[in-house]
Amino acid sequence: MEFSEIVQQRRSVKSYDPDKTISDAELRELFDEVVLSPSSFNLQNWTFIAVKDSAMKKKLKEAAWGQSQVKDCSAAILVCGKLDAYQDAPKIYKDAPKEVQEGLLPMINNFYEGKEQLQRDEAIRSASLAAMTLMYGATSRGWATGPMIGFDPEAVSRLLKLTPNLIPVMIVVLGRQKDPPRPRSYRHPVEKVVRLNTLDGPGLTGMPHPPNKPDPAHMPAGA
Amino acid sequence: MEFSEIVQQRRSVKSYDPDKTISDAELRELFDEVVLSPSSFNLQNWTFIAVKDSAMKKKLKEAAWGQSQVKDCSAAILVCGKLDAYQDAPKIYKDAPKEVQEGLLPMINNFYEGKEQLQRDEAIRSASLAAMTLMYGATSRGWATGPMIGFDPEAVSRLLKLTPNLIPVMIVVLGRQKDPPRPRSYRHPVEKVVRLNTLDGPGLTGMPHPPNKPDPAHMPAGA
Repeated sequence: MEFSEIVQQRRSVKSYDPDKTISDAELRELFDEVVLSPSSFNLQNWTFIAVKDSAMKKKLKEAAWGQSQVKDCSAAILVCGKLDAYQDAPKIYKDAPKEVQEGLLPMINNFYEGKEQLQRDEAIRSASLAAMTLMYGATSRGWATGPMIGFDPEAVSRLLKLTPNLIPVMIVVLGRQKDPPRPRSYRHPVEKVVRLNTLDGPGLTGMPHPPNKPDPAHMPAGA
Repeated sequence: MEFSEIVQQRRSVKSYDPDKTISDAELRELFDEVVLSPSSFNLQNWTFIAVKDSAMKKKLKEAAWGQSQVKDCSAAILVCGKLDAYQDAPKIYKDAPKEVQEGLLPMINNFYEGKEQLQRDEAIRSASLAAMTLMYGATSRGWATGPMIGFDPEAVSRLLKLTPNLIPVMIVVLGRQKDPPRPRSYRHPVEKVVRLNTLDGPGLTGMPHPPNKPDPAHMPAGA
């Protein structure tokens, strides 16, 4: 399937066939791709918990405002961000040339150490990139998915036994879609959300723009 | 190109052919797909600034630790997260049935209003999902990309005239790759970063696991 088709086909799905299961082998095929997602300094600030067990999915549903897709899906995958991933750098770069290690490792440490907001930003950023790969990989193999943030992060952390260095970033439910897809919901126009050169530059219409002539009819998207 | 192939082919590229340009029409084709990315409550917490102008790319490079890919790429795309996207909900749901609006709009407002950390988390999460779509869409069309966080966010915000409701989440440089790709860098093993049912559950090997028998040889990935 071409990527354009995958993007069109991917929808955030809420109703799943509760009898459909996914094998570890099928999940593994997906995650072999997910881990190829990019991350800052290749720190791979992610950890995934694939909840397939029925009793566990039931408990997870309770921590997710009772939303039935968490129970009915084939796997509810908690995508976690790893706050202290920068501490893995020595391991990640263990085979790099010595001069690369000597330059990079102190730099990475200085960049993140003690910076709690940045560690959190990074965990969410990298884990989200990986989550998107997971959803497209699933779509390309005929699975439906749905990303969710509607859950109690503390309850989920307790239930899935997260260590304090991990934060829940989202749940991606994955399974066989039950109901036909609804019409796609509203999207802001591209020319509104994509600006050229500066926020107050012309919106991207797809037509070439004369330089230095922003279209005054377009208000900045962030205004 | 199959998605598996796109994932394998996508690499974080740093060297670009400075003579290669991208047309607005080509960018538009990409962004028509990017805006189909998922976001919480479909709030589309993103705004993109595609910097194609040479003088602007040069200035942006200076705000990005002098990294040459920002100047040499065909477009340096600043992916912004929109902190106040929840305020767009009335517009986004304007065509929804009245009873949906009456339930959903106060709920969305309560969920985000006054919660600065959550607004930031959401902006980073949604913008990162969109950034991943951008990179795969580009790869599928033969463009190389590179996500970057190595820049001064304040300097970039000033230069691209961001309003205070927007935060830079990453720059995605996009262009024609100049040098041959380097070998892919180290990835943590899948069985380490993907756990079954709980963090201390068995790692995902791709083989079926007997229920309630976690493999003690596997340490939790987050430990």
